[in-house]
Amino acid sequence: MEALDYHAEERRKAEFDLEEMKIVFRKDNRTMLSRKDLFKDTLRKAAHAWKRIIELRLSEEEAHMLRSYVDQPAFTDLHWGMFIPAIKGQGTEEQHEKWLPMAYKMQIIGCYAQTELGHGSNVQGLETTATFDPQTDEFVIHSPTLTSSKWWPGGLGKVSTHAVVYARLITGAQDHGVHGFIVQLRSLDDHSPLPGITVGDIGMKFGSGAYNSMDNGLLRFDHVRIPRNQMLMRFVTREGKFVQSDVPRQLVYGTMVYVRQTIVSDASCALARAVCIATRYSAVRRQFGSQNGGPETQVIDYKTQQSRLFPLLASAYAFRFVGEWLKWLYTDVTQRLQANDFSTLPEAHACTAGLKSMTTSVTADAIEECRKLCGGHGYLSNSGLPELFAVYIPTCTYEGDNVVLLLQVARFLMKTVSQLGSGKKPVGTTAYMGRAEHLMQCRCEVERAEDWLKPSVILEAFEARAFRMSIACAKNLSKFSNPEDGFSELSPDLLEAAIAHCQLIVVSKYIEKLQQDIPGKGVKRQLEILCNVYALHLLHKHLGDFVTTSCITPKQGALANEQLRLLYSQVRPNAITLVDAFNYTDHYLGSVLGCYNGNVYQRLYEEAWKDPLNDTVVPDGYLEYVWPILKQHIRTARL
Amino acid sequence: MEALDYHAEERRKAEFDLEEMKIVFRKDNRTMLSRKDLFKDTLRKAAHAWKRIIELRLSEEEAHMLRSYVDQPAFTDLHWGMFIPAIKGQGTEEQHEKWLPMAYKMQIIGCYAQTELGHGSNVQGLETTATFDPQTDEFVIHSPTLTSSKWWPGGLGKVSTHAVVYARLITGAQDHGVHGFIVQLRSLDDHSPLPGITVGDIGMKFGSGAYNSMDNGLLRFDHVRIPRNQMLMRFVTREGKFVQSDVPRQLVYGTMVYVRQTIVSDASCALARAVCIATRYSAVRRQFGSQNGGPETQVIDYKTQQSRLFPLLASAYAFRFVGEWLKWLYTDVTQRLQANDFSTLPEAHACTAGLKSMTTSVTADAIEECRKLCGGHGYLSNSGLPELFAVYIPTCTYEGDNVVLLLQVARFLMKTVSQLGSGKKPVGTTAYMGRAEHLMQCRCEVERAEDWLKPSVILEAFEARAFRMSIACAKNLSKFSNPEDGFSELSPDLLEAAIAHCQLIVVSKYIEKLQQDIPGKGVKRQLEILCNVYALHLLHKHLGDFVTTSCITPKQGALANEQLRLLYSQVRPNAITLVDAFNYTDHYLGSVLGCYNGNVYQRLYEEAWKDPLNDTVVPDGYLEYVWPILKQHIRTARL
Repeated sequence: MEALDYHAEERRKAEFDLEEMKIVFRKDNRTMLSRKDLFKDTLRKAAHAWKRIIELRLSEEEAHMLRSYVDQPAFTDLHWGMFIPAIKGQGTEEQHEKWLPMAYKMQIIGCYAQTELGHGSNVQGLETTATFDPQTDEFVIHSPTLTSSKWWPGGLGKVSTHAVVYARLITGAQDHGVHGFIVQLRSLDDHSPLPGITVGDIGMKFGSGAYNSMDNGLLRFDHVRIPRNQMLMRFVTREGKFVQSDVPRQLVYGTMVYVRQTIVSDASCALARAVCIATRYSAVRRQFGSQNGGPETQVIDYKTQQSRLFPLLASAYAFRFVGEWLKWLYTDVTQRLQANDFSTLPEAHACTAGLKSMTTSVTADAIEECRKLCGGHGYLSNSGLPELFAVYIPTCTYEGDNVVLLLQVARFLMKTVSQLGSGKKPVGTTAYMGRAEHLMQCRCEVERAEDWLKPSVILEAFEARAFRMSIACAKNLSKFSNPEDGFSELSPDLLEAAIAHCQLIVVSKYIEKLQQDIPGKGVKRQLEILCNVYALHLLHKHLGDFVTTSCITPKQGALANEQLRLLYSQVRPNAITLVDAFNYTDHYLGSVLGCYNGNVYQRLYEEAWKDPLNDTVVPDGYLEYVWPILKQHIRTARL
Repeated sequence: MEALDYHAEERRKAEFDLEEMKIVFRKDNRTMLSRKDLFKDTLRKAAHAWKRIIELRLSEEEAHMLRSYVDQPAFTDLHWGMFIPAIKGQGTEEQHEKWLPMAYKMQIIGCYAQTELGHGSNVQGLETTATFDPQTDEFVIHSPTLTSSKWWPGGLGKVSTHAVVYARLITGAQDHGVHGFIVQLRSLDDHSPLPGITVGDIGMKFGSGAYNSMDNGLLRFDHVRIPRNQMLMRFVTREGKFVQSDVPRQLVYGTMVYVRQTIVSDASCALARAVCIATRYSAVRRQFGSQNGGPETQVIDYKTQQSRLFPLLASAYAFRFVGEWLKWLYTDVTQRLQANDFSTLPEAHACTAGLKSMTTSVTADAIEECRKLCGGHGYLSNSGLPELFAVYIPTCTYEGDNVVLLLQVARFLMKTVSQLGSGKKPVGTTAYMGRAEHLMQCRCEVERAEDWLKPSVILEAFEARAFRMSIACAKNLSKFSNPEDGFSELSPDLLEAAIAHCQLIVVSKYIEKLQQDIPGKGVKRQLEILCNVYALHLLHKHLGDFVTTSCITPKQGALANEQLRLLYSQVRPNAITLVDAFNYTDHYLGSVLGCYNGNVYQRLYEEAWKDPLNDTVVPDGYLEYVWPILKQHIRTARL
């Protein structure tokens, strides 16, 4: 299945001298390190990666690949992923010339200081102030309250020398809302915080390795002064007059589409990792069902295991294809922006917001489900799944909280519905809403289980369900005299309508993908099976939606379930090939249970002895705390 | 709401000298300790707890309370919870006299060595052997394969001096299946492993504190000899003849009912903890919705937050009440066993298996949902939720894997259905199946949203749904010529039928509870509201089940959803009181976000500075790994 080569970058990785890398970037001891040691280990890896990037003259994209291969969150992620893009996207030409060369050489290291203790989703509620002082032509950056403390920015806690700080621009008595400012935080001589700056790490997070390698930070300003020309994207005259720049606001949406598109691709990768581990281990693990003293049944052969695992395998592929499509969407949006065509932006924005939300929520839950599918041994850190879960879940919160994003999608859907009669044609992923009459009337024509294999049948059912749920919401909303009250009151239903819409997008992009040529013998057939698994498992999971909107009958729902069972049997023989096609190295996968050669028990046994607790036969603390118990001396023991 | 005093034991705790305990049993630094330091800290706490237990002459039950208050998994949990009960339950009088006094004084410390690397759920597949040697009147305990290594037993890795080891009894050429044996593992002089014994810790697990305080162990035997009288419950004569003991096999089920009953109560407690944290923080956290410069909206006032949080609050109460009922069931079963009445055992066993599975799965997911409900800050360890999740999830695997247990329930349901025509009346929680004709024909009579508030309406809908799903499964099963093939093929559907049955039990026991007197002004009213929330959120979540079985119409489903929304508004004013009623101390809750006085931001800020990374302003590793980057010396740096 070479055509499914999941990571093109894997090939490039071979050039990174893999054997040496395994030692330099070893991952197996991460969960045993103390916070300080883990952090120092991360600094070491970041330095080594940077050294290699320079030595090998890697392109920016290749450097990004190498960092993702290191697979340990570090300050460099924010420097390259947020600090530099913020300056590039929001800075003037002059600012580019001054700051970018230093940043590219890492003569300065930056982070992105937006979130505060009291405000995350509501960016417009940030409290940090940047007050213009016309006397000195400076901004005074200040943290007026406890809740205005910057909180969470990665790389801020211990490393960054600079930050893009978001603060309320105040000129005179006027509050101009939130803007970005380049602020130096630490001395370039001795790394000590500059006067007026209080900075530190916010402490331990979920998991034992995971994001604890990152110095997520807190930051407070006590009237810190910066020159006027360090405000991004805007211009304030010497006289304190605030003038809008001519950079169109819509450009920000372009960046959002880009960032969220990469998050969807990453979701597919993370999900594929978890599924690869669970699938391989399910083929190794045997339990029950021995007949005449023969081997027991592989757990992957149990229908209960298949019905939980194979839909996740299908989702990994589905998210990959929708991720590919989002890449196209981004280039399309970019071209239109360059031509000053903003017409598709709202739809593209809603679409990427919804897909970011849906794919990351599903992936987070799926990683934990894969852990459960590995039984007891999935609870061991060296299964790779606990750490993968812990390091993945913040994705549901950052770059837009998943619930907040879905509500934005719902709002867009309601707007689209309200304009249906107006002659304004819905575009892009909402185009199906243009066939309102048909979608309200159509009846699913499935009579036998195999009718559910037809893409057109599936697509229509998903379109009708999504549309009818939106229409039902719109109808209920119209009963409220104040639309905002209605939106708030009905928000749980609106979330469900938004999810139905997002699932439709993924299903339809998967079906579109299958209309193309797909190289590799038999590959297309396997992908078709998975596409059906993806759609029908959703249909079964949300059966209530489909039936109560009369999109399908209960009988048709039962037939879909029957077909789904048959499909699982067709996935089974190729399940291992389908996860091998992701092409993850054992080092990258980082899982004893998911190792390629399947020698799971031997490796579990060997790994166990590496735990520091096994350094000595008698544990530290035995003499003080166990011996007095056994010898009945506990009453007089000094504890 | 004093009548809802969630923990009677809290009152007793006051006597444990709380202030001192907070220092001795401090929890706030747990996630920052290395594995070795965490383990030593656990030994220290266990010793201190034992000292207090002796000093205060605590009863066994009170000692258990104290240990649960310490809230850190330790070897003592297994010594008291598994080793001693195994000897008590399976040992002879003679064995009791020999071993129990030593165990009660902790002159020996024991664990429960059942699970192996290759076998968990399938206990009958264990590979460790205990071969009787008639020459010496001994058993030879041996690990013949890698997969026969004992793996997971808590307290085994570094502490236990003894273990109850499960092994296949071999006499002559005959294999008598799996039995328990008391085996000494370590010297009582110097704690070193005895000859022929290889023992160690299996390594890091999920989370950073969590179960890493426990020395889950591995164990291999190389022909270790023990006297004949250390086999539990059975008798082997000098001549090697194996004789069944007269202890009835059914007693084992009695113990299972007991253990699973405590797991259900614990699920309620863990869920209540998570809900308490999320509810309190949701009332503190404000985001968006500021009007005219006033404060923003408390997130608990958002319907999306309520629709995710309040069903979990309701579940915490529902699980508490079903747990109370299970306590009664256990005493009933015990009395019947003493009277040699085994008639209710299969039903009681299926019921507790199902409730163990359902409540622990829901609780595990709910803890993570509560973490998400706390937004970004829920990802911080000091929110208490990451560690609560990591320490809770093994419950879904131990004492019966949750999927395996549900399949047992399904099997029992299919058996009950098959006997319906035979005149054998279904008992206990399956009694409703006796009204087969009515449940197949009844029609829900809901016409207005408020009709869904009637307990009889809810109960009938849940009974009809559970029954019809079981009947549908039975019907599909009958199409298979080999029933086992059918059971295997249809197992995903059977799981759903089992879950429907378990949900019915919880709903019906909650309704029964409300038929009793409940002291405290207005308490009953609040509990009624939560009961309706519990039932109607399940109905909404599983709408497909209810509608496709024609138990309710789509219209009635929409009315239930409407009623649910109204109920959320009724829960809101009392939400804080309802979680305060759980009566958790701040120390026990261990959450900055859930602290009683709501001073969340101040505490977050203070806690951050305790992280070891903040010990120094410039982090360890700066000179070696960051300075060379900034100063462009990386190519020549020694990394």
